[in-house]
Amino acid sequence: MKNDTVNYPTLSFKDRVVSVALSRARELGFEIVACASTGNLANSVAANAASGGLKSYVFIPADLETGKVLGSLVYGTNVIGIRGTYDAVNRLCSEIAGKYGWAFVNVNIRPYYAEGSKSLGYEIIEQLGWRLPDHVVVPMAGGSLITKIHKSFKEFVKLGLVDERECRIHGAQAEGCAPIVNAMKIGADIIKPVSKPQTIVKSLAIGNPADGFYSIQTMKQTGGWAENPDDTEVVAGIKLLAETEGIFAETAGGVTVAATQRLVQNGRIKPNESLVLCITGHGLKTQEAVANKCGEARVIGPHLREFSALLDRKN
Amino acid sequence: MKNDTVNYPTLSFKDRVVSVALSRARELGFEIVACASTGNLANSVAANAASGGLKSYVFIPADLETGKVLGSLVYGTNVIGIRGTYDAVNRLCSEIAGKYGWAFVNVNIRPYYAEGSKSLGYEIIEQLGWRLPDHVVVPMAGGSLITKIHKSFKEFVKLGLVDERECRIHGAQAEGCAPIVNAMKIGADIIKPVSKPQTIVKSLAIGNPADGFYSIQTMKQTGGWAENPDDTEVVAGIKLLAETEGIFAETAGGVTVAATQRLVQNGRIKPNESLVLCITGHGLKTQEAVANKCGEARVIGPHLREFSALLDRKN
Repeated sequence: MKNDTVNYPTLSFKDRVVSVALSRARELGFEIVACASTGNLANSVAANAASGGLKSYVFIPADLETGKVLGSLVYGTNVIGIRGTYDAVNRLCSEIAGKYGWAFVNVNIRPYYAEGSKSLGYEIIEQLGWRLPDHVVVPMAGGSLITKIHKSFKEFVKLGLVDERECRIHGAQAEGCAPIVNAMKIGADIIKPVSKPQTIVKSLAIGNPADGFYSIQTMKQTGGWAENPDDTEVVAGIKLLAETEGIFAETAGGVTVAATQRLVQNGRIKPNESLVLCITGHGLKTQEAVANKCGEARVIGPHLREFSALLDRKN
Repeated sequence: MKNDTVNYPTLSFKDRVVSVALSRARELGFEIVACASTGNLANSVAANAASGGLKSYVFIPADLETGKVLGSLVYGTNVIGIRGTYDAVNRLCSEIAGKYGWAFVNVNIRPYYAEGSKSLGYEIIEQLGWRLPDHVVVPMAGGSLITKIHKSFKEFVKLGLVDERECRIHGAQAEGCAPIVNAMKIGADIIKPVSKPQTIVKSLAIGNPADGFYSIQTMKQTGGWAENPDDTEVVAGIKLLAETEGIFAETAGGVTVAATQRLVQNGRIKPNESLVLCITGHGLKTQEAVANKCGEARVIGPHLREFSALLDRKN
């Protein structure tokens, strides 16, 4: 494969944050790396630890999609499934980090992890020919990515690599777990945690987002907004992106597409404005979400007459 | 995502061949594109047709892995499952191409499809810093890829972009469907078709390979060899690559790794020689192959004492 493709060896943007965090963990002398994860981060920690010769533990809610569980196990990591929400996983990981002194990429070495997200923002600017778009729509789980995309834009402006202009950064969560969007919509700065997330969008199902406050500041400062499509809209968003762009996104991508549709419908994004959607993970990781919603193969014997008959029935 | 990542939107090298074939199909005025496929090609035709605004039909054996079937359906294509082997699918597609005049990327517009494979060879040279390696190991299904990698090398030598040197090109198939390897091993130029492929490596299960003869010429001309690991070796190959390089390959990748191990064991590849393995598809497409062979998550409640007890039992 192309070198550049290796930027996403585990098919989500988490490879960006993990490459930074594990490089730093190694510099700091850690031998065991770990994470609390809704799936994508676990996949990336497991793969990058394997290639880097580090021992790893990944902690996930026990009910994740099979592709995301296998997508960690295959790298020979220790997968620990926790009976509970992501927030319970996260609390436990803080305790384990304290007791065992392992490098948890999103707990005790989180600053390095967080800075790794900035490369996504840098590349938006680079790929647009060194300019900022009118709008960016970003999925939010813990809320780190949206704040770091904003930070990356400000850094490139400060460095003179791109001209400053109005660029609205919008956030997206699924209706069944939308603590940041809910706060944004009522004008609150304080996040009210969601104790029991109920959505097919497991990768964004963080009820008590670590960077929720800062996410709201990002949206407010840039003139952005927030939307929380329901699971039906999410599935429709996945299919729309696949059928029109040939890109098969995981559920988080469906949230981003569906949230964008709402932003267009309510006039916050105008047809003539430039727009970037952050599609952060591949659809093969969350096949359950669309498995029975895309029709099925039409099965026939290997005979021309059977195919012709099928075609005639269709037309 | 990065522009460069879009080279593999459907997570296999078939995106290379399809981008060339569909561009040409469009130039030629076709409105319906199609293919006979063991899965990867269907995914790529479906996705690229969707993004290019072309109508598509993809024909596959009805018993393919679920990830590969969904990985076509999601793009809104017409998936036709055929009761029979790939070779039966292929024969039917020749008849359909004749009757309906659609652009079958690997039948009536196959030359463009085939040339698309050359970019893989170009990039091997580019990524190695403009030199040829001592060895390349390539999976073989219909046998097109291995011949086109050879062609690409010869082109770059002719153009003076890389120095000529001995570069052995080896081919890999799974034991349960290895018509090209079988012929190579007995020194025959003529391929004896395999009528009933029996292997978990469905993407390579082509019993009557279109470019089998030329594949053998490629291996002979370059001093390469051929190996056909069994399914157990294939699974071990997938796990070895994941655990050491952090790369999760589909079954074809397991064949390539396992064949390489055999080539090392029998002395055809020496420890001090440079080596490129062509890993041509992602493991999330063929999860069934390793689903119950990578251990499982250890499930506990969200309590530090439960984790400590688990760790104590392990040690």
